[in-house]
Amino acid sequence: MKRIVVVGAGFAGLSVAKGLLARRDLHLTVIDEKNHHLFQPLLYQVAMAGLSPADIAVPIRSLLKPRADGARVDVLMGKVTGVDTSQKRVRWTGGDDIGFDFLVVACGATHSYFGHEAWEEHAPGLKTLEQATEIRRRVLSAFEAAEREHDPEKQRELLTFVVVGGGPTGVELAGALGEISRYTLSADFSNIDPRRTRIVLIEAGGRILPSFTSSLSRKAARDLESLGVTVWTSTRVTDIQPAGVSLGREFLRAKTVLWAAGVKPSPLGAALGVPLDPAGRVIVTGQMNLEAHPEIFCLGDQAHVEGPQGFPLPGLAPVAMQQGRYVADAIARVLDGKEAPSGFRYADKGQMATIGRRRAVAETGTLRLGGFVAWLAWIFVHIYYLVGFKNKTFVLLQWASGYLFYRRGARLIVNKEWRGQTAPSATPPSTPSAAERA
Amino acid sequence: MKRIVVVGAGFAGLSVAKGLLARRDLHLTVIDEKNHHLFQPLLYQVAMAGLSPADIAVPIRSLLKPRADGARVDVLMGKVTGVDTSQKRVRWTGGDDIGFDFLVVACGATHSYFGHEAWEEHAPGLKTLEQATEIRRRVLSAFEAAEREHDPEKQRELLTFVVVGGGPTGVELAGALGEISRYTLSADFSNIDPRRTRIVLIEAGGRILPSFTSSLSRKAARDLESLGVTVWTSTRVTDIQPAGVSLGREFLRAKTVLWAAGVKPSPLGAALGVPLDPAGRVIVTGQMNLEAHPEIFCLGDQAHVEGPQGFPLPGLAPVAMQQGRYVADAIARVLDGKEAPSGFRYADKGQMATIGRRRAVAETGTLRLGGFVAWLAWIFVHIYYLVGFKNKTFVLLQWASGYLFYRRGARLIVNKEWRGQTAPSATPPSTPSAAERA
Repeated sequence: MKRIVVVGAGFAGLSVAKGLLARRDLHLTVIDEKNHHLFQPLLYQVAMAGLSPADIAVPIRSLLKPRADGARVDVLMGKVTGVDTSQKRVRWTGGDDIGFDFLVVACGATHSYFGHEAWEEHAPGLKTLEQATEIRRRVLSAFEAAEREHDPEKQRELLTFVVVGGGPTGVELAGALGEISRYTLSADFSNIDPRRTRIVLIEAGGRILPSFTSSLSRKAARDLESLGVTVWTSTRVTDIQPAGVSLGREFLRAKTVLWAAGVKPSPLGAALGVPLDPAGRVIVTGQMNLEAHPEIFCLGDQAHVEGPQGFPLPGLAPVAMQQGRYVADAIARVLDGKEAPSGFRYADKGQMATIGRRRAVAETGTLRLGGFVAWLAWIFVHIYYLVGFKNKTFVLLQWASGYLFYRRGARLIVNKEWRGQTAPSATPPSTPSAAERA
Repeated sequence: MKRIVVVGAGFAGLSVAKGLLARRDLHLTVIDEKNHHLFQPLLYQVAMAGLSPADIAVPIRSLLKPRADGARVDVLMGKVTGVDTSQKRVRWTGGDDIGFDFLVVACGATHSYFGHEAWEEHAPGLKTLEQATEIRRRVLSAFEAAEREHDPEKQRELLTFVVVGGGPTGVELAGALGEISRYTLSADFSNIDPRRTRIVLIEAGGRILPSFTSSLSRKAARDLESLGVTVWTSTRVTDIQPAGVSLGREFLRAKTVLWAAGVKPSPLGAALGVPLDPAGRVIVTGQMNLEAHPEIFCLGDQAHVEGPQGFPLPGLAPVAMQQGRYVADAIARVLDGKEAPSGFRYADKGQMATIGRRRAVAETGTLRLGGFVAWLAWIFVHIYYLVGFKNKTFVLLQWASGYLFYRRGARLIVNKEWRGQTAPSATPPSTPSAAERA
């Protein structure tokens, strides 16, 4: 029985594992730091109180239930810390080393602060459920603190939200902030008017959504503006402090700063001892494996594969899923003694980003959509890909009711501290950044 | 315009505030440490991964939206630290003191470890959403750690769950643990059989559910046993350590211990400077106010009121809600110059506790129900009282699908640490108690 170890149960790793579940001749071990697979495209909805964590996360075990006549499946929660490529073993935090015949490395990416790691404290990014609930806590706490505050200058600081990075995540966060402040919360407070909230989206490049055509970039910027979001392009963040953001010689006072400016691949790629591209991604062959170790595959956000235009493929869910299915097929062929498939080819279905409650931009091939039509396309695609998520119906219903009533059902401020007795959580944050240090 | 301050937006405080929303002559200020009202009877479902936090919590603001021709309403997030009864002002953490003409103190109760506060670290109680998610994390992490563990003795320790306290909360937690281990997770693991999980419910008194008639206590104990729960009555916990629980000269090795043994009223009652009962509750008049300060009311779990049999009324949601409505009416009468209502009378609707997925015990008047009929009554009552919760339909659907498929939709292990870079969360807990210190 051949042993295959899959590290990471994101879109890439999960697709590999699912594609091999039926093989009786395999012992499949999936290792992930979390117990859940995350539907990352909707993570911003959790950060913005539209959905609950459980709506977009499913226990990995329940997605990879072993079949009676299929592969032996082990799902393990732990962190892989190293790979011994010659002995074919992985080191991990949960027990003895695990040997493999095939290894799939698909740990995805984390945030990159471009060397300014200290910024993270003041400007969380959005990659995990923990980060999403932290962002939700900061955003909602800022409104609560502003309601308590009587000094107009401090109030303005509390009601200023800065989103750094004008890619899809930054646009989605800024759009949702606009919607929350202009619609959802507009009538909830008595001392502040949430519609006065300043939301500033900062992008270092010349336009937001640089991967889209420029007409859609402009459309998205106008849509954001109509939700009250200020879009500052060609603006570089030079420092982030508890009180706000430095932009060269300017300083923008803001209690809440969100980071959507850059990602870097998970460090496990470096442990493979093979060449990396300048961004830190593992350079793989056309078959998604390592030149020197064809039994080791690397895919998803961690892998550098060139697309048809010569650029590396972007870190998108469809890329990861297609690579996963390709690798499952490649491994099955090796097991069956067949020849390896030809190189991986990405079938580009296009890209989309949503702006607030009913606007989006989408492009596929030469088709470019904006506004409500793009938003319908967006919601259709995302519901469709929640396949396998048992909460699909609930998420859809929740959206439908949220759409009709401008509601956000998950508007909870949940503290990190759970103890009732020792009670640092009992003292409410006077400001979000004070809470963050608590 | 008279000013009324309500401290605490639980069942009692919220009922007072709702009952006064229509009064144009009132300025109503509601202060709570959280931004949400919690439907506490279902909190054990969050701890046991059946529901998400947002399903049973609603932002207080959205429950107390001011009416165009009604009271001025301020909802403030903060902690009240003291009451100056002579100057009629409350001190709080969010700003300047707040003056009042009427004050309602309804901060509820927290856990009591009977002087052993150090036990909390190893045996969390269940009063807040934070505690519920912490319990969920510990329970699910214990199964994950057991799956990684190869030493049978350590595995047994990880798969032993102790619930201290045989009241309704303890019974509900133990029953849900039985259901999860015997049904929900039974096929999810390959190295362990979750059905071997030991669940021990420890009660110091002679029987569980002591507030019910003894025939229902026995029925509940049998129902628990059929779910694999061991019920130890007349057993006193003498110490709780990371490795387990001391029971006099015995020591039960268990990685996960949950505390459901005792509550104590919130300390704000003591700040009123009036007599307390031995349990720390404020002794109020028949009109729910203070003898020396008729403008100050105290209700819910914080108040000592005698019931018809001479015992103080129990800390139940119906008691708190009825008191809240009574106090709203009493204040309205004072404002209208009418005479005060006669003393508060609790209309006892009975009590119920649920055991696992489709059994319960319920008694009302002389009617005693057990099994599935009691469970139907339980679910009907709880859905009915979710009135005002926008998620009512979702919760019902979720239950229905959970009932049909033995599913638990919120089976997420979410870490407390959100940072990606500094990454203590990146190392998974080898055991729940290690995680807890992380």
